[in-house]
Amino acid sequence: MPVTSDELNLIARTVRTLSMDIVQKANSGHPGIALGCADIAAVLWAKIMNYNCEDTAWINRDRFILSSGHGSALLYSILHLSGYSIPMDELKRFRQLGSLTPGHPEFKHTPGVETTTGPLGQGFANAVGMALAEKLLADEFGDIIDHCIYSLAGDGCMMEGLASEAASLAGHLGLGNLICIYDSNRITIEGSTDLAFSENVKMRFESYNWHVQEIDGHNYAEIENAILEAQRKKDRPSLIIAHTVIAKGSANMEGNEESHGAPLGESEVKASKEKLGCNGDVSFDVPKEVYEIFNRVRSEKKSIYDSWKERYNSIIQGSVKDRWNKYFNKPDIEGLRAMFPKFDKGSKTATRAASGKVIEVLYNELPNFIGGSADLAPSNKTMVKNISESGKGKWGRIIHYGVRENAMGSIQNGIAYYGGFINFSATFFVFMDYMRPAVRIAALSKLQSIYVFTHDSIFVGEDGPTHQPVEHLAVSRAIPNLHVIRPCDAEETCEAWLSALSRDDGPTLLALSRQNLPVIERNNCSAKDLHKGGYIIHDYDTCDFVILSSGSEVHISIEAVKRIFNETGIKGRVVSFPCLELFDKQNESYKKDVLGIDKKTVVVEAGIKMGWEKYAGIDGLYITIEEFGSSGNESDLAKFFGFTVDNIFKKISEYMKA
Amino acid sequence: MPVTSDELNLIARTVRTLSMDIVQKANSGHPGIALGCADIAAVLWAKIMNYNCEDTAWINRDRFILSSGHGSALLYSILHLSGYSIPMDELKRFRQLGSLTPGHPEFKHTPGVETTTGPLGQGFANAVGMALAEKLLADEFGDIIDHCIYSLAGDGCMMEGLASEAASLAGHLGLGNLICIYDSNRITIEGSTDLAFSENVKMRFESYNWHVQEIDGHNYAEIENAILEAQRKKDRPSLIIAHTVIAKGSANMEGNEESHGAPLGESEVKASKEKLGCNGDVSFDVPKEVYEIFNRVRSEKKSIYDSWKERYNSIIQGSVKDRWNKYFNKPDIEGLRAMFPKFDKGSKTATRAASGKVIEVLYNELPNFIGGSADLAPSNKTMVKNISESGKGKWGRIIHYGVRENAMGSIQNGIAYYGGFINFSATFFVFMDYMRPAVRIAALSKLQSIYVFTHDSIFVGEDGPTHQPVEHLAVSRAIPNLHVIRPCDAEETCEAWLSALSRDDGPTLLALSRQNLPVIERNNCSAKDLHKGGYIIHDYDTCDFVILSSGSEVHISIEAVKRIFNETGIKGRVVSFPCLELFDKQNESYKKDVLGIDKKTVVVEAGIKMGWEKYAGIDGLYITIEEFGSSGNESDLAKFFGFTVDNIFKKISEYMKA
Repeated sequence: MPVTSDELNLIARTVRTLSMDIVQKANSGHPGIALGCADIAAVLWAKIMNYNCEDTAWINRDRFILSSGHGSALLYSILHLSGYSIPMDELKRFRQLGSLTPGHPEFKHTPGVETTTGPLGQGFANAVGMALAEKLLADEFGDIIDHCIYSLAGDGCMMEGLASEAASLAGHLGLGNLICIYDSNRITIEGSTDLAFSENVKMRFESYNWHVQEIDGHNYAEIENAILEAQRKKDRPSLIIAHTVIAKGSANMEGNEESHGAPLGESEVKASKEKLGCNGDVSFDVPKEVYEIFNRVRSEKKSIYDSWKERYNSIIQGSVKDRWNKYFNKPDIEGLRAMFPKFDKGSKTATRAASGKVIEVLYNELPNFIGGSADLAPSNKTMVKNISESGKGKWGRIIHYGVRENAMGSIQNGIAYYGGFINFSATFFVFMDYMRPAVRIAALSKLQSIYVFTHDSIFVGEDGPTHQPVEHLAVSRAIPNLHVIRPCDAEETCEAWLSALSRDDGPTLLALSRQNLPVIERNNCSAKDLHKGGYIIHDYDTCDFVILSSGSEVHISIEAVKRIFNETGIKGRVVSFPCLELFDKQNESYKKDVLGIDKKTVVVEAGIKMGWEKYAGIDGLYITIEEFGSSGNESDLAKFFGFTVDNIFKKISEYMKA
Repeated sequence: MPVTSDELNLIARTVRTLSMDIVQKANSGHPGIALGCADIAAVLWAKIMNYNCEDTAWINRDRFILSSGHGSALLYSILHLSGYSIPMDELKRFRQLGSLTPGHPEFKHTPGVETTTGPLGQGFANAVGMALAEKLLADEFGDIIDHCIYSLAGDGCMMEGLASEAASLAGHLGLGNLICIYDSNRITIEGSTDLAFSENVKMRFESYNWHVQEIDGHNYAEIENAILEAQRKKDRPSLIIAHTVIAKGSANMEGNEESHGAPLGESEVKASKEKLGCNGDVSFDVPKEVYEIFNRVRSEKKSIYDSWKERYNSIIQGSVKDRWNKYFNKPDIEGLRAMFPKFDKGSKTATRAASGKVIEVLYNELPNFIGGSADLAPSNKTMVKNISESGKGKWGRIIHYGVRENAMGSIQNGIAYYGGFINFSATFFVFMDYMRPAVRIAALSKLQSIYVFTHDSIFVGEDGPTHQPVEHLAVSRAIPNLHVIRPCDAEETCEAWLSALSRDDGPTLLALSRQNLPVIERNNCSAKDLHKGGYIIHDYDTCDFVILSSGSEVHISIEAVKRIFNETGIKGRVVSFPCLELFDKQNESYKKDVLGIDKKTVVVEAGIKMGWEKYAGIDGLYITIEEFGSSGNESDLAKFFGFTVDNIFKKISEYMKA
């Protein structure tokens, strides 16, 4: 029996009173959106969405992303009511340290929360990524994958350029499984949107090839009908502009921007409950009818789930099952290593080019390997020819993100949240700046997003300082839980990819060279030692000093050390140090063996020294670059900034005399 | 005598051959856009724009911003031809180290270059900032300021969310002085824009309240007429969609994406010159007629300049001149200090609140002080009531940026490039990530952009890890030439503002607390010592260890040191360390005096330790936070992450025993 309008009303009223109480008890939070969007939430959870609280990882569940992440009280309330494992006690611990109900939704932390949101626009773009993932999976496995992605976004999300980029790409791709409900309450923190936001959002989204409807966001029939209409538009994403009143249902705060980010206050909460027909003196009250309605809803949804399971069991069999497992199991790292290209010692190849060869293998060996560049694929070496495209529509396994780094990062996270795929994005390292918000969230949400960032130093060359990263290694290493790997040659590049592929608790950034680098002759070590983060790549029986180096500076460090030994007899060790985070995870004795004890230490890296002092200390010698780069050719830049064998030889000779 | 169509053709042809040669000789660069937009450049410089090569800083000159910064060969060519001081020899040194003609345009480096561009979308948004600055200056000084801002942007710029944000705000503000020419060649690096970009750009810009025209970008009359029509639209910005052919005029590369970012090759250059009716064997050839045309153009433009000068001299007199000087001279730092608020020792105030009081003074004392927040003004404390607004239209001295951090940073840079204003932007510190590309360019271009970034640590509290900066102090300090100041109390906040106001060679970032902090009792020092970056704020006659601390951790460090002395007799020094960049500029003896020699050193800061090791070394004690934060109240977080007097006492006691 479908949920009636009166029942929706009861659900929405309960979401409102519960949200008010949650925020009031925490004395912190955002009641305005929770009251304003309670009606939308009631329709979504009671009528529209397919989900199973007992199997929250069900691959064919509808996804809901709260792009307006500050509306967490709304989300936790409706998840609680609809049967997710969020006990009432946890609602009472809203925003407290260690609770299930943090201030903004956190992925893998709270049942039913699909993505980490809060920074505006992220969720909107995550939803685009999920919609693309759904399309690709459906292309592969047919209609056992046939669900929708819903997101709820506010005026703030609409203003973020991130959402504009993602919307443009979603329209281009024709993602008909994507439905965004725009909570248009015309209120932002500084006041009316008239202060800063007067564009025609409907026209804008139509210009992106979206299907757009406008509705009263407090009218259940209009909400439901608009969503059903949007579901029928299979060739385009849908925006439903829901005109809402912030803090709808409150006694005196409707339409007031002060309801956005602060509790309503006890007297207003009481008055609002009474206005809604509830007892103003009772808190955290859920009428038992509401739980009963959702019991009924769940049993209906359970039968949908059960029939899906039957279909799944009949379809995912034999070779299809093998293929399915390729999507949902970890890749075979040893098998991949054996298939990776081999490089002759002493031959020269840019690490971006080596990466390109690895990517070609991955596309061919892993059906669930997808990714793309923000319009730099030929430079990033991610444009692989002749792969078996699994995509049938405009979507394919090679994603053309366009010049949209910011959305690329967040769409990529959406794909990672969705699951089933291994996915990478690519751009010049310096343009990581454009997608930094997404990289940070990937690290926070422990997503396996892989970054192919090429042109990793001033050796970009002629394009000059706007295109030359100097601080980017440091600022990447600064992000907790991000692995930053800067391989020194083609062999380390292969291992760097394997490291990224085997990680399932966070993202990996590959910083790759534009310029050719020699494949290094290794004696007592192997490129596999990359997985230890840092290892001795050149040594003598004893050692008078240690060079720590990464990427394109390793081979010149080795040459300099050889020359120092030949000309002075002083013995230097070179540590190839592709990944500080992996090194820091090694045991103390290994670290001491590599770094030596009380050795004079030199750092050679074409970036700022920040981040290396923890190994080389105050008295270390730093051959680094502490200013912006400059436009010029590679060899002039090397001389000017001191990244030559001559200069390293000279600097170390002086340092050893001091 | 107006420049004729034949003359335009000759200019454009010369721009084409010159650009081909420039790129070919450098063996690096972007010929496609230079050939594709040569016709537009010819019309702009020969017919439309007012400029004076002898006075490149003329305030009422038209501005041209090459948002597609990779088209630098086009810009340098036309600047050379039109009489700017870029000698032919410098065109021949294109993209070489130390030349006047770097790979992407650099502000203050090359005459006639108005902004540093290259990262796409930046120039588009800079132009919006310039247009706003022009409107504000015209409001103040009448029609002696009445020029236009022209920008040239490509498909890449159009795809960047940054440009979307800026366009939406420009339309909202009704900046009729802004004219963007969109070089729509439908080619990007990966191939046709059909790969990723199929939106209706005309409709999109109309949705933003722009006036949009479509023209053939190779038809001189259409180009000129469209610009004149755009000039007549006083209430709205204009987009001119110029349909162009990339590499137009080349023999075999027209419409080919491979012409975008690589030289055409010698044989193609020769064939193209011949196709254009030139001698294929001559390089860097400029017909003397072209110089003569521009001599004539310059003398016409000179008379416009001269009559403007007359008007200027008659209007900018007496009290108007005094006011003009307030715009164009440096502010009186001592005078401002005297007017700043005073705070009682021991009283408590958040540094964001102290900053708010400073901002109020600045708005009232400095007519050219402008700024705003990305919809967080009430939280950033930048929303000042009762100031004398100088703006008459929708534009005013308090800018409502909307939730558009990325555009805010670049618009702010546009205002700074324009000159005459002191301008700030504001958001939560963590959302600096969204505007990082602009912050980097401000530092590179030595702009006085001021950032008011509040909520500077995990003490954001309940909003949780998406809103809590932990790595942001480090990643800000990593940007060369950016001053990052984190004041410890209200008094340091005043000095931090003075430091930012007195800087004219780069941006300053103020990292400010959400929470209240005590105004610290100082004995042998003063908050003015902030200008040294770090100074001893608490000391004994001798000292056994040194604490380096900033912001909200300084006062708890002082309390901990007092308790250690009282309970153990061990003497600790506390260094208030608001700005590492300023400290590093002090002389060695001052630095040694402050840090001590071979002292045990402790760092106490609610952020990652990266960046502090250069002072505290490998053996220092770091009371920092090396992971993401968590949602919870301030006091729970302080205990959990160890930023309490108790924990500092305990950790240092152990450290001193070790």
